[in-house]
Amino acid sequence: MPFVRIDIPTATSNAHAEALSQAVHAALAETFDVPPDDRFQVVTRHGPGAIVCTPAYLGVRHTTHVALVQITCSPGRSRDQKRVLFARIAQQAEQHAGFAASDVVIHLVETLRENWSFGNGIAQYTLETDS
Amino acid sequence: MPFVRIDIPTATSNAHAEALSQAVHAALAETFDVPPDDRFQVVTRHGPGAIVCTPAYLGVRHTTHVALVQITCSPGRSRDQKRVLFARIAQQAEQHAGFAASDVVIHLVETLRENWSFGNGIAQYTLETDS
Amino acid sequence: MPFVRIDIPTATSNAHAEALSQAVHAALAETFDVPPDDRFQVVTRHGPGAIVCTPAYLGVRHTTHVALVQITCSPGRSRDQKRVLFARIAQQAEQHAGFAASDVVIHLVETLRENWSFGNGIAQYTLETDS
Repeated sequence: MPFVRIDIPTATSNAHAEALSQAVHAALAETFDVPPDDRFQVVTRHGPGAIVCTPAYLGVRHTTHVALVQITCSPGRSRDQKRVLFARIAQQAEQHAGFAASDVVIHLVETLRENWSFGNGIAQYTLETDS
Repeated sequence: MPFVRIDIPTATSNAHAEALSQAVHAALAETFDVPPDDRFQVVTRHGPGAIVCTPAYLGVRHTTHVALVQITCSPGRSRDQKRVLFARIAQQAEQHAGFAASDVVIHLVETLRENWSFGNGIAQYTLETDS
Repeated sequence: MPFVRIDIPTATSNAHAEALSQAVHAALAETFDVPPDDRFQVVTRHGPGAIVCTPAYLGVRHTTHVALVQITCSPGRSRDQKRVLFARIAQQAEQHAGFAASDVVIHLVETLRENWSFGNGIAQYTLETDS
């Protein structure tokens, strides 16, 4: 159910883009109890100037090699789960995907479980509670 | 008021991209009472690897020819309206846009009516209730 | 904390794209009290047909040279603040970025303050209230 948009510079290698995609998915599975086969992402590369990122905010410095990660998911996760999610993504991105942890900027958008269809025109999550 | 992002593979023909765009809009008009002239969409094509989609989730199989549809709209539609919306989009996409119904993945993001401006810097929907 | 997606036609000049990016940021700073160094945007250009925009809605006419602006931000701003934000963006876009005010279409998506990480895997806004 998470839908993830990852916006990265064109200069990112394919291997690093895939590692970042995998890092986000693995972190969601570990901390948000997302099933391993619940993976829907769009990874978009942008040329110079298309990603506009402050050089520093709240004491965190950013380079031009920044990854912007937007995760749309169902509500209900605790603050602690969110904290662990962010920490895992940044850590894994730095270890495996060539992004400094400081250059991984993430936010969540929460939307109701009834708002999802995973194909065949069915709102699969409404079947859990209605039937 | 709906704002629709449609992410599809580069391999999609122009005719099929237009048919999918039209299918989403027609379904919103039919099931969400969206006015016919309330149409704002961004259709983005992605090369191989940029759309990351599970091969199967909740018993629905996906190919690489998948369409990811994100609809931002005002809140207030019923579960039944949402179910019919999803069904109509998937059905029309399969009939007219070259996507299997199983490869049409949709979600809604709901945001307040006061959060929209349709040009000229005016929050048009706030005029309904404030004036 | 706002995360801004700006979708514009390929035909937009670099100078106008930058002016629009700056107009949105300046308006957020002025009307939503966004800090000047809190700037995270993705500006994406789209070829003909990829931006699908009604020719007119609610009495506002649109050309093909339209800018679609999606601002994800924290909740809590008043209706009046939102009205002023929209007005400022449209006005500045017309004065400096080559878009008619009628061709600036904006919406907000609001998400909790705990849903943001500005790097280093930390949910910076949760530190304000928890520590």
